[in-house]
Amino acid sequence: MLALKNKIKVEGKVLSDTVLKVDSFLNHQIDPQLMKEIGQEFAKLFHEAGITKIVTIESSGIAPATMAGLIMDIPVVFARKRKSLTLSKNLYTASVYSFTKKETSEISVSGDFIQPNDVVLIIDDFLANGQAVLGLIDIIEQAGARLSGVGIVIEKGFQSGGELLRKQGIRVESLAIVSSLENGKVVFAEEEQA
Amino acid sequence: MLALKNKIKVEGKVLSDTVLKVDSFLNHQIDPQLMKEIGQEFAKLFHEAGITKIVTIESSGIAPATMAGLIMDIPVVFARKRKSLTLSKNLYTASVYSFTKKETSEISVSGDFIQPNDVVLIIDDFLANGQAVLGLIDIIEQAGARLSGVGIVIEKGFQSGGELLRKQGIRVESLAIVSSLENGKVVFAEEEQA
Repeated sequence: MLALKNKIKVEGKVLSDTVLKVDSFLNHQIDPQLMKEIGQEFAKLFHEAGITKIVTIESSGIAPATMAGLIMDIPVVFARKRKSLTLSKNLYTASVYSFTKKETSEISVSGDFIQPNDVVLIIDDFLANGQAVLGLIDIIEQAGARLSGVGIVIEKGFQSGGELLRKQGIRVESLAIVSSLENGKVVFAEEEQA
Repeated sequence: MLALKNKIKVEGKVLSDTVLKVDSFLNHQIDPQLMKEIGQEFAKLFHEAGITKIVTIESSGIAPATMAGLIMDIPVVFARKRKSLTLSKNLYTASVYSFTKKETSEISVSGDFIQPNDVVLIIDDFLANGQAVLGLIDIIEQAGARLSGVGIVIEKGFQSGGELLRKQGIRVESLAIVSSLENGKVVFAEEEQA
């Protein structure tokens, strides 16, 4: 997705060989117009998949997921990272290990909002090691719903998440795949997905 | 805002005399079409205020704020509750006391994304005791920016936040004001603003 890649080129900050900071339009400040274009792109990619629900994870997944939900005219559910919800009954939970923070956290989704007849599109801001997506897939399976695919805004192609998921036969559509951040420079993978 | 009040009437769950759960369209599952209508309402209310930036707080403020930002064509910044950002320099922070959780947490916004020439609209999902909004106002003042007003999706009129803010001369626009949750029933205040 050209507008996204241009935005990354201009505003992305390469903090190390593995860390790309996009706080100016995705992770802290949000560019609503770009989020709308991202939503349109996901809607286009998955328009024949019969999606009934988008599942994302707080907080940075919410803006692109909500825009995709607006265009696809379906509800969005965001998994919570906090523990407060775990007091409720009827809750699906999964553990997510963060390689960055070196800690495991719980994510949870209320059973009220994923049904066995749901066809789910997962949307998230970043795909690195794939642990957050695996946690969401775990929850979708607990609910007995069907996963249709995964829409990612920025995939770090040099980390293992994308391969891990695709090897399992999961459809992963990433709007920008960064193949390298070496020498402070953002290099994109060939645009296999246009 | 009629569509919102109807949604609250139909889907809101009164858990106690002070707790209204709207997890099916605002705080966990998100109704993107309703969020767009909410965004349009905020845009209409504040269209002559010269707003340059919307500031909200993760996570439930993000969807309505992003929709308002889309329609007003301005960026949205969400304050973070986590501590991870506090390692960065150039960060505005404020303490927010939660009466519900009986604990104080830190919220923070990067100095990169609020400038002294910004005219800021705060948007949040709920207004109860006003502590989160006061924390955001503190941050806006630290940045030397100007607060134009506060847009709230659901105000609990029987708690003190609305009065606290309006007494300070702050413009608060709430799309639904709940005056009572007694006996398991949602009662709205007279629609002074519609």
